[in-house]
Amino acid sequence: MEQIKVTIAGPRGRMGKEAVELVQNTPHFTLISVIDHKGEASLDVPVYKDIEECFRTETPHVLIDLTTPEVGYLHTKTALEYGVRPVVGTTGFTPEELNELKDLAESTKLGCIIAPNFAIGAVLMMKFSQMAAKYFDDIEIIELHHDQKLDAPSGTAVKTAEMIKEVREAKTQGHPNEKETHSGARGATIDGMHIHSVRLPGLIAHQQVMFGAEGQTLTVRHDSYNRASFMSGVKVSVETVMKLDTLVYGLENILD
Amino acid sequence: MEQIKVTIAGPRGRMGKEAVELVQNTPHFTLISVIDHKGEASLDVPVYKDIEECFRTETPHVLIDLTTPEVGYLHTKTALEYGVRPVVGTTGFTPEELNELKDLAESTKLGCIIAPNFAIGAVLMMKFSQMAAKYFDDIEIIELHHDQKLDAPSGTAVKTAEMIKEVREAKTQGHPNEKETHSGARGATIDGMHIHSVRLPGLIAHQQVMFGAEGQTLTVRHDSYNRASFMSGVKVSVETVMKLDTLVYGLENILD
Amino acid sequence: MEQIKVTIAGPRGRMGKEAVELVQNTPHFTLISVIDHKGEASLDVPVYKDIEECFRTETPHVLIDLTTPEVGYLHTKTALEYGVRPVVGTTGFTPEELNELKDLAESTKLGCIIAPNFAIGAVLMMKFSQMAAKYFDDIEIIELHHDQKLDAPSGTAVKTAEMIKEVREAKTQGHPNEKETHSGARGATIDGMHIHSVRLPGLIAHQQVMFGAEGQTLTVRHDSYNRASFMSGVKVSVETVMKLDTLVYGLENILD
Amino acid sequence: MEQIKVTIAGPRGRMGKEAVELVQNTPHFTLISVIDHKGEASLDVPVYKDIEECFRTETPHVLIDLTTPEVGYLHTKTALEYGVRPVVGTTGFTPEELNELKDLAESTKLGCIIAPNFAIGAVLMMKFSQMAAKYFDDIEIIELHHDQKLDAPSGTAVKTAEMIKEVREAKTQGHPNEKETHSGARGATIDGMHIHSVRLPGLIAHQQVMFGAEGQTLTVRHDSYNRASFMSGVKVSVETVMKLDTLVYGLENILD
Repeated sequence: MEQIKVTIAGPRGRMGKEAVELVQNTPHFTLISVIDHKGEASLDVPVYKDIEECFRTETPHVLIDLTTPEVGYLHTKTALEYGVRPVVGTTGFTPEELNELKDLAESTKLGCIIAPNFAIGAVLMMKFSQMAAKYFDDIEIIELHHDQKLDAPSGTAVKTAEMIKEVREAKTQGHPNEKETHSGARGATIDGMHIHSVRLPGLIAHQQVMFGAEGQTLTVRHDSYNRASFMSGVKVSVETVMKLDTLVYGLENILD
Repeated sequence: MEQIKVTIAGPRGRMGKEAVELVQNTPHFTLISVIDHKGEASLDVPVYKDIEECFRTETPHVLIDLTTPEVGYLHTKTALEYGVRPVVGTTGFTPEELNELKDLAESTKLGCIIAPNFAIGAVLMMKFSQMAAKYFDDIEIIELHHDQKLDAPSGTAVKTAEMIKEVREAKTQGHPNEKETHSGARGATIDGMHIHSVRLPGLIAHQQVMFGAEGQTLTVRHDSYNRASFMSGVKVSVETVMKLDTLVYGLENILD
Repeated sequence: MEQIKVTIAGPRGRMGKEAVELVQNTPHFTLISVIDHKGEASLDVPVYKDIEECFRTETPHVLIDLTTPEVGYLHTKTALEYGVRPVVGTTGFTPEELNELKDLAESTKLGCIIAPNFAIGAVLMMKFSQMAAKYFDDIEIIELHHDQKLDAPSGTAVKTAEMIKEVREAKTQGHPNEKETHSGARGATIDGMHIHSVRLPGLIAHQQVMFGAEGQTLTVRHDSYNRASFMSGVKVSVETVMKLDTLVYGLENILD
Repeated sequence: MEQIKVTIAGPRGRMGKEAVELVQNTPHFTLISVIDHKGEASLDVPVYKDIEECFRTETPHVLIDLTTPEVGYLHTKTALEYGVRPVVGTTGFTPEELNELKDLAESTKLGCIIAPNFAIGAVLMMKFSQMAAKYFDDIEIIELHHDQKLDAPSGTAVKTAEMIKEVREAKTQGHPNEKETHSGARGATIDGMHIHSVRLPGLIAHQQVMFGAEGQTLTVRHDSYNRASFMSGVKVSVETVMKLDTLVYGLENILD
């Protein structure tokens, strides 16, 4: 496989550290430099405080940007201008910014991937759920998290329900005369789907989506144990961005 | 193993049919007769319409009674009077009736087992849950049934919570500032435990009890696929009642 | 929704009975006749002993054929000749027969679906597994069946592994120095994937495919509780065959 | 609840650090000192290099010893001589040492708990499995670990099978004519039970024990996510050792 030369912006953050490790441990990736606005990163590759300074000297194939919304936009734009393909894990771009970057990617014919969620397993769980919902009307989502989580249901559960909603006709599930003897037993309801939020110390971040039909159930489950789970998505993105010549938003749109 | 001679009352009911099959397929059990008030049972053993008529002729070791609350009490009493050990699956005895039967078992020194739930797996699930609750404060119950079930939570889930309540100090679980963005997400609450009722076509009768503590979870789950699940409890009861000389109420009290 | 008029061949078989029930209970399906070579079916629609006799009188939109390999080919061919779209659950067609039927469907511009497995949940499980395998190299299949099953692993598990093999590079999983202290612990191996066959009384037919990557696992699971599970696949096929103008083999090829 | 004064030996080790945190975060425990042979621990309580020096000055109720086999024996003995109750997580005591400590605990009428495994959930899983095995003959163990684990099956799986073996008659499970078309599919066998070892990156340490009988399955599962899982066992042990007047070996023997 051909070597992909990578520069990482934000190498000292929680995601950034994992990305450095990923790139260093992937045989066909080479880390050639990092961008760290404080210049504090301690690595055996050149550390640049400024992205333009970096790109005037270095010519990576891919920039992995794991910085902040403020800096992320500028970094993405600059990368495209210097002929570097961006893989961006930052959220919070405005629609205007996204449109501008999209145009820039198109005119430069450079691939660019912006993904608010790099956990490939979670993205596949949502994608499969949407596909299954075309054939199974009855759906229950159980999401399970540690007991320090404040909101219920989780953002991922709500997003899953919304993605399902796009392809499923709304349906009131369960028996029409169903009765809760203890309020809340049947969970929250989104478009007729039921969502249950389990909170226990020990748990990390888990979700299972269950589909039922006469005589069978189908279950899709994702268990996330730690931040390293995001790295498989970063890896796929780096490989895929090399083959793209437009901007793609959302990991689900590069998985087929 | 010594042969246990068995008479079954109610052999044409749903449970009764399974019991006939159980006794006929267990090498150390022998079906010697049945009691069927309509005399319609078609089996290769004598069929009696009346219990006294039966016991004047036959001397089984054990009576398996799977009739109705009205008849069940009379059958149990008569069996004890004739020296036959009853295994009774009927519910609905009054406290007075139970006390009277208890006294009768004691005075005749005959074992007698009355069990509203013979699903040994379900009973063990509840027993283990009660035991685990001494060491794990945080508990969530997820029960899953077919979507024609009317009540939520299920009777077994409520009973499990009540058994746990006997050994656990009440506790408000989850983060104190936990917030439901969609009402019902955190399920029903009994004594601080959360209960979630999943309903899907295809499902039969399932329950899992989850316990969480720092760094770990413990889960006890029972899946009931059909009525045959009750028969392992009947089998254990027939074997155990031979060794008892008192009345025991509830399968959980003969399992150690 | 427009009414779809259906004729069922083989209405007294196990699958046939379920299909009759399905068609009668689906509002936009109408059962107009059945084909039963012995003429023994007892239903409130006309019963024909011969398919040509049926189609000379009746003009269904769809023929659901749940007969045998010998009859199935002739039925499918005859249906296409009479302008009826076949949905066929029979296996055992020869490649020559399939090719001939394919040509016939093409020339008549009629949809035709032949599916050896109508359990839509199982087919989705395999399809999702194939998709996930592109992003997760490490895969373990656990299939669980009742203890009367003779062969291990199950046909579905082997088929799943083969579908995954089409898209994944072979990989030796686990630690290179992994050691079985009790032989067989790591299961069977197909192309580096591990397959584990669980057999227990009580179980019916279940399979879960697990994918692992740094910090996460993704699981796809299908539970089949009874034959009714095939009917959702028949329903989708009847609806889909109305929109097709060619022959499709395999349910996975009509699910998108 | 009465305050329990605790001294911890080995406060800088992986388990020791967790224990320090546990004692400091438990309202009815007070950490009064630590024993660290290098004196390097940095805590706001007195640090002693030597156990005798510590006990000549301090009078804790309980010593939590998380050191090494060499030191553990001496620490346990010294604690008992000074009237301090030991909770010991060290393994590797010789039978002679255990006997001597047992005699010493008896003569001093002091509680002492030595436990090779403090993961209370794992210990309960094994205990429940042993209990369930009295009523369910058919058992399959599935243990799931990260793919860097060398041995299969895991030590816990083997220990579980051995505990079950104590109460169950050996039984050849599955159909007598069962056939592996791919070798290893049915897993390893201990006393007729089947054990399956799943290895995937992402997984941590998990085990599920499944019991099957006609129409039902019962499952007991433990998920261990990190070392903190040992701390609930340490907590129970500290509380229990205050009420004991003998030595108990193994956490399972203080759980009821």
